[in-house]
Amino acid sequence: MINENTITEMIATGKKSIYWTEINMNLLQEIKESFLKTKPLQGLTIGMCLHVEPKTAVLCKTLKAGGANVIITGSPGTTKDDVAAAMADEGIKVYGQRSDGREEHLQNIQSVLKHHPQILMDNGADLTREYIKHYNAEGLIGCTEETTTGANLLREDLKGKFPVPIIVINDSPLKQVIENEHGVGQTIVQGFMRTTNLIVPTKRFVVIGYGTCGRGVARYLRSLGAQVTVVDQNPIAGLEAALDGLRVARLEDTLAYGQVFITVTGRPNIILKEHIDKMNDGAILANAGHFSWEIDLEYLESEADTIDRLSPDIEQFTMKDGRRVMLLTKGEMLNLAQEGGGGNPVETMDLGFALQASSVLYLVKQHAQMATGPQPVPHEVNIKVASNMLKQLSLPL
Amino acid sequence: MINENTITEMIATGKKSIYWTEINMNLLQEIKESFLKTKPLQGLTIGMCLHVEPKTAVLCKTLKAGGANVIITGSPGTTKDDVAAAMADEGIKVYGQRSDGREEHLQNIQSVLKHHPQILMDNGADLTREYIKHYNAEGLIGCTEETTTGANLLREDLKGKFPVPIIVINDSPLKQVIENEHGVGQTIVQGFMRTTNLIVPTKRFVVIGYGTCGRGVARYLRSLGAQVTVVDQNPIAGLEAALDGLRVARLEDTLAYGQVFITVTGRPNIILKEHIDKMNDGAILANAGHFSWEIDLEYLESEADTIDRLSPDIEQFTMKDGRRVMLLTKGEMLNLAQEGGGGNPVETMDLGFALQASSVLYLVKQHAQMATGPQPVPHEVNIKVASNMLKQLSLPL
Amino acid sequence: MINENTITEMIATGKKSIYWTEINMNLLQEIKESFLKTKPLQGLTIGMCLHVEPKTAVLCKTLKAGGANVIITGSPGTTKDDVAAAMADEGIKVYGQRSDGREEHLQNIQSVLKHHPQILMDNGADLTREYIKHYNAEGLIGCTEETTTGANLLREDLKGKFPVPIIVINDSPLKQVIENEHGVGQTIVQGFMRTTNLIVPTKRFVVIGYGTCGRGVARYLRSLGAQVTVVDQNPIAGLEAALDGLRVARLEDTLAYGQVFITVTGRPNIILKEHIDKMNDGAILANAGHFSWEIDLEYLESEADTIDRLSPDIEQFTMKDGRRVMLLTKGEMLNLAQEGGGGNPVETMDLGFALQASSVLYLVKQHAQMATGPQPVPHEVNIKVASNMLKQLSLPL
Amino acid sequence: MINENTITEMIATGKKSIYWTEINMNLLQEIKESFLKTKPLQGLTIGMCLHVEPKTAVLCKTLKAGGANVIITGSPGTTKDDVAAAMADEGIKVYGQRSDGREEHLQNIQSVLKHHPQILMDNGADLTREYIKHYNAEGLIGCTEETTTGANLLREDLKGKFPVPIIVINDSPLKQVIENEHGVGQTIVQGFMRTTNLIVPTKRFVVIGYGTCGRGVARYLRSLGAQVTVVDQNPIAGLEAALDGLRVARLEDTLAYGQVFITVTGRPNIILKEHIDKMNDGAILANAGHFSWEIDLEYLESEADTIDRLSPDIEQFTMKDGRRVMLLTKGEMLNLAQEGGGGNPVETMDLGFALQASSVLYLVKQHAQMATGPQPVPHEVNIKVASNMLKQLSLPL
Repeated sequence: MINENTITEMIATGKKSIYWTEINMNLLQEIKESFLKTKPLQGLTIGMCLHVEPKTAVLCKTLKAGGANVIITGSPGTTKDDVAAAMADEGIKVYGQRSDGREEHLQNIQSVLKHHPQILMDNGADLTREYIKHYNAEGLIGCTEETTTGANLLREDLKGKFPVPIIVINDSPLKQVIENEHGVGQTIVQGFMRTTNLIVPTKRFVVIGYGTCGRGVARYLRSLGAQVTVVDQNPIAGLEAALDGLRVARLEDTLAYGQVFITVTGRPNIILKEHIDKMNDGAILANAGHFSWEIDLEYLESEADTIDRLSPDIEQFTMKDGRRVMLLTKGEMLNLAQEGGGGNPVETMDLGFALQASSVLYLVKQHAQMATGPQPVPHEVNIKVASNMLKQLSLPL
Repeated sequence: MINENTITEMIATGKKSIYWTEINMNLLQEIKESFLKTKPLQGLTIGMCLHVEPKTAVLCKTLKAGGANVIITGSPGTTKDDVAAAMADEGIKVYGQRSDGREEHLQNIQSVLKHHPQILMDNGADLTREYIKHYNAEGLIGCTEETTTGANLLREDLKGKFPVPIIVINDSPLKQVIENEHGVGQTIVQGFMRTTNLIVPTKRFVVIGYGTCGRGVARYLRSLGAQVTVVDQNPIAGLEAALDGLRVARLEDTLAYGQVFITVTGRPNIILKEHIDKMNDGAILANAGHFSWEIDLEYLESEADTIDRLSPDIEQFTMKDGRRVMLLTKGEMLNLAQEGGGGNPVETMDLGFALQASSVLYLVKQHAQMATGPQPVPHEVNIKVASNMLKQLSLPL
Repeated sequence: MINENTITEMIATGKKSIYWTEINMNLLQEIKESFLKTKPLQGLTIGMCLHVEPKTAVLCKTLKAGGANVIITGSPGTTKDDVAAAMADEGIKVYGQRSDGREEHLQNIQSVLKHHPQILMDNGADLTREYIKHYNAEGLIGCTEETTTGANLLREDLKGKFPVPIIVINDSPLKQVIENEHGVGQTIVQGFMRTTNLIVPTKRFVVIGYGTCGRGVARYLRSLGAQVTVVDQNPIAGLEAALDGLRVARLEDTLAYGQVFITVTGRPNIILKEHIDKMNDGAILANAGHFSWEIDLEYLESEADTIDRLSPDIEQFTMKDGRRVMLLTKGEMLNLAQEGGGGNPVETMDLGFALQASSVLYLVKQHAQMATGPQPVPHEVNIKVASNMLKQLSLPL
Repeated sequence: MINENTITEMIATGKKSIYWTEINMNLLQEIKESFLKTKPLQGLTIGMCLHVEPKTAVLCKTLKAGGANVIITGSPGTTKDDVAAAMADEGIKVYGQRSDGREEHLQNIQSVLKHHPQILMDNGADLTREYIKHYNAEGLIGCTEETTTGANLLREDLKGKFPVPIIVINDSPLKQVIENEHGVGQTIVQGFMRTTNLIVPTKRFVVIGYGTCGRGVARYLRSLGAQVTVVDQNPIAGLEAALDGLRVARLEDTLAYGQVFITVTGRPNIILKEHIDKMNDGAILANAGHFSWEIDLEYLESEADTIDRLSPDIEQFTMKDGRRVMLLTKGEMLNLAQEGGGGNPVETMDLGFALQASSVLYLVKQHAQMATGPQPVPHEVNIKVASNMLKQLSLPL
């Protein structure tokens, strides 16, 4: 049981951890100030399913400043309880806690939906799909969906019959460049340096995948003096990599050469048994993709003779032939999963959430004129947010 | 009058200047070898309107190896007579010479068309538009068009009634990255270094336009240690530039700061009277865009007190207030117009022309299944050419 | 009281933390293998005063493999007790524990000296100066000294009357380039990213000091896309910075512009009251120099209205005028002092300690032919270690 | 016979070619303005042996502005006659013309010396060595010598008996960084791009020599996206190169891999028969070192089946086994020897000549207090020139 003193402390801790984030999310701050004056979301109920952590807290406070009634639940395992307590203290309705499993998650979603939200803000379509199953869309104005995967699930479920517009945040060109290339690029490189304490220049990295995230990882590594080889099945991506000064190879040709292998494809089953078997003693594996499915972890775990945790973020698998394979952060996203890792830089999340908040405003004002169904962030929203970010950087509009 | 001896010499000189180009156009060489075996263009007549210079000669030889009958005319003022002589000696029908004006150009086009070409390869749509005016499309299989501008002119003329497919080469993502970003980026920086003999690191450049070409110019300059400021009206482009480590400003705010101004917008009227008037003494102006319309040359010429040619590529305009403005290569494309300038690197032209030759092959084989009108390079052509270029770089498919 | 179970656990933990370090210190491993065969230090007693942590443990194990009897004490406050336990278990004599103060430190030094070491390995000259005070140099072969400061103290004390050669490790050109420029450069940038979770590209950094360390910090930041201004009193250093693509300014001219200020001068009193007073709200201060004397911490602490710890590594000082100043890791070395920070990359420490071990071997073999007193690492030692490191990188000798 | 009209024209042309250089040599301009006011060289006769071309002309005009009587001769084959005419018209006494051979060169030197110069400014010690042979040093104040080679020749000749101070310009740390690393780095890369019209990114370069010049060439190439391998016998240089993100190899291991080989060692006999024999068909050879002795040109010329000049700057040697080797600019310095090549950037020559002019002033004022013989540029001169260059870059002192 949590007593009152403890709650007071949790609120204090939660607010403190929101503070550093908030003062560096200048785009949301600016929107908040504007919202406080014009109250464009007055009386609106917003239902949300996003990780309950400091950056989301700043988003919620922004929407609340606009007059909205904000109801949120998080994802299983990522809710920070002290942040949740601080959010509740600010008048945001929060369902769920860190210890929740899948079942409690679904209950939390139902709890959110019972508030009859007019806007849904979702991350993976859990909330929206439950809504569609159980409610008709009366009173619903529109949705935002963070991920491309979520948008695709909705397309399958609804087969073209979308009641309202659904703005897909991830497809914004802004987000692709800033969050994917620069945010992921910077923090994966940071994560490698931090978890291993190894030198980057001279190190032979193999980066698998040359989409926007992979390009970011590979370019940042090269700029620090590393020897970087890129693997990508698409020859157009490969040619781009080559012209960016990177080497390009087939994965099988890099195994005896590479020292560190980083997957950034977003697809499953990339580094397999046959690859691991041919790597050198001491090879280091890490993943920068969303899911921990890119490296065959099952093979490592089942076939290793011994498994040793060398540090919070490094596991050593000693294979039957004596070779040692080092796995960073259990094959989960290196930037997020490292001990105390903060994920993408605050400013890149600020941009993503400014797109979210601005898209909500756009939905409220323009939904009657919008097509229904999944659609990209409106051009004028992208332009506005980009302009504001340039202004925040003291650069001209 | 040109006597026989002279012609023999011209052919020899022309062949020599084609040679260095040819041995570095590996994609075309590979296509040529394949064409020689399978003769896929046997009996076909190809009418062409492209600059008559060594790289085009290699393209013509490639098509001829495929069995085609190649008829070409160039553009006014760019035909290299010795290359034309060498091409004729190889059995390519060439109309026109360096001294031709606009009138002779139109006559040359008529001469090409009288051969009843089944494929048109064009650069700016002069040839195709004349064809449409004077011929019905009987026997015509399809066209390639190098430029976006040419494609737009055809769209206007034909108002949707296109008899055949027209493949627009410039829109290929390959060409955008390799020719625009890297080809133009590298050669504009080279052109600045060569024409001025000035140091690049520490120099304050202002690059106006952050499309693919502008990005190339700005990134190459920064990588050499220059201080680069980017000007672009689009805040999304501006934000990309900022994250690429460049400064971003409004043109009017750079005038007292910049030492070298390079236009790369592709649009007219960028550096105007009001900008020139506020530049520092000694400011250097150059253009990397296709036309010499980005800088107000008329203002410079009419308002300067004195105009001095300091070197083949540098003109000094001393304005009435005593300030000196330096104009490089008359405001024409710095990489091409510099004395003895070779334009884009041979390998980037090889890529563009490999897309041309492969598109011709695609038209011949697939035209019956293709939509009519302007369309991008088919995806499989892009993939194939990218694969081949990686292979040429000794990198895997 | 520490019971036996606890000691067993401490040894296990200590050995684990030595392991990851050891397998990445390939130069020392190679020396160890050679030492095991030839036992060149057989019967020798080595007295040492270096931080008792995993990297030093690997050095001690290497010397012990050569036959030496190794006696060590650390510095006050940096001894890792579990590493000390593991070292003791390997037969290395360790004096001291984490909780020791200055007085215990001096006692520990006396304890080391009572073993009558023939070689002294020192870091700041504490051990060597005590030796000189209390012992005549009979039986002493030579010393190594890690720091330039230590060497200078010895020069003062001994006024030219040095009984034995003293090899000063820090002056090696290898160490300057690899540890200072690359080791410090990489880890300070990592430390900033980790402690703040802020984006690096677009950020306006001011790096104060352009010696080898400062150059490393500034170049690494620029390569990641930051906007970097360098401050250095020496115009030659300033000119180098300018040609490296950095801006150069006087500190007073950067105050209203900079967002992050990093001191890397090695000298006291760099960022003073008058500078702090003119910084913008939210300015971030960090130090990369050896001592925490470069920023006027006393002013911050005495004059701030409130001081808030926002995270383990960020303190916020709210000044009387309302401006907030953010101090990272209390102004101590950002790479070392950050929570869980590992300091310089393992490979750079491997190089420094390989120079140490090789210098010890050189002293043993060559001391009779050497001059006495402080002197640089012998050229042949530098060449040998550089060759070995290239070989470790799979690059040719 | 040259008639008067022609001379008038030559003077006009010469002055024009001096002009662009002069307005970009801001350090010399600044010294000239100061000299005009204080006339510190009034009545002094300066004898000079430096290439007679525009940059030297600006140096001479600067010294003349200080009141000196300037007498100059050039080196065989490099005198630009129109520049010489323009210099003569400005009151500088010039001996020699382009067509001079070795014999006339020695006569010209005698002619210079007959003016009884009090200061000698030399480039390779020809002038100074003749002076020493034929004159006692009465009235001689001091010398400057551009090259290290020249200084060494004087050391041999004089065996320690130097009558006056000889300031060796090339050893200045300023010159090493700015002229060698940046000046040579930039212009060699420019020279490759210009002479070949080939793409730099993706190209496999082998840079032989990693001194300051080689480092410049290798770093500039890498920054443009090339694949660069460095060859250097010194493992310390090799390790630096590795940490700078370059690959390091033995020359013999690069032969089947490299596409372009650039020598930058300053030593003879680097690329030999046994290397050339193992290069791939089409390998390109170029030299950035001072003399054309680094590549075995004799082997190429004597053993090639055919030699074809493909362009003014490219010769093709077809070897007996059919492989083709491409030699740029006859193996002479690529930046200087390319057709119309301007050599190092004007600003880097400005720095070198500002060191010259300032050293002359220092000699005049301080010679009585100076040691005799070859010596580096005085520290205060380096500091002053560096400060002035920062100021010229609008950066603070």
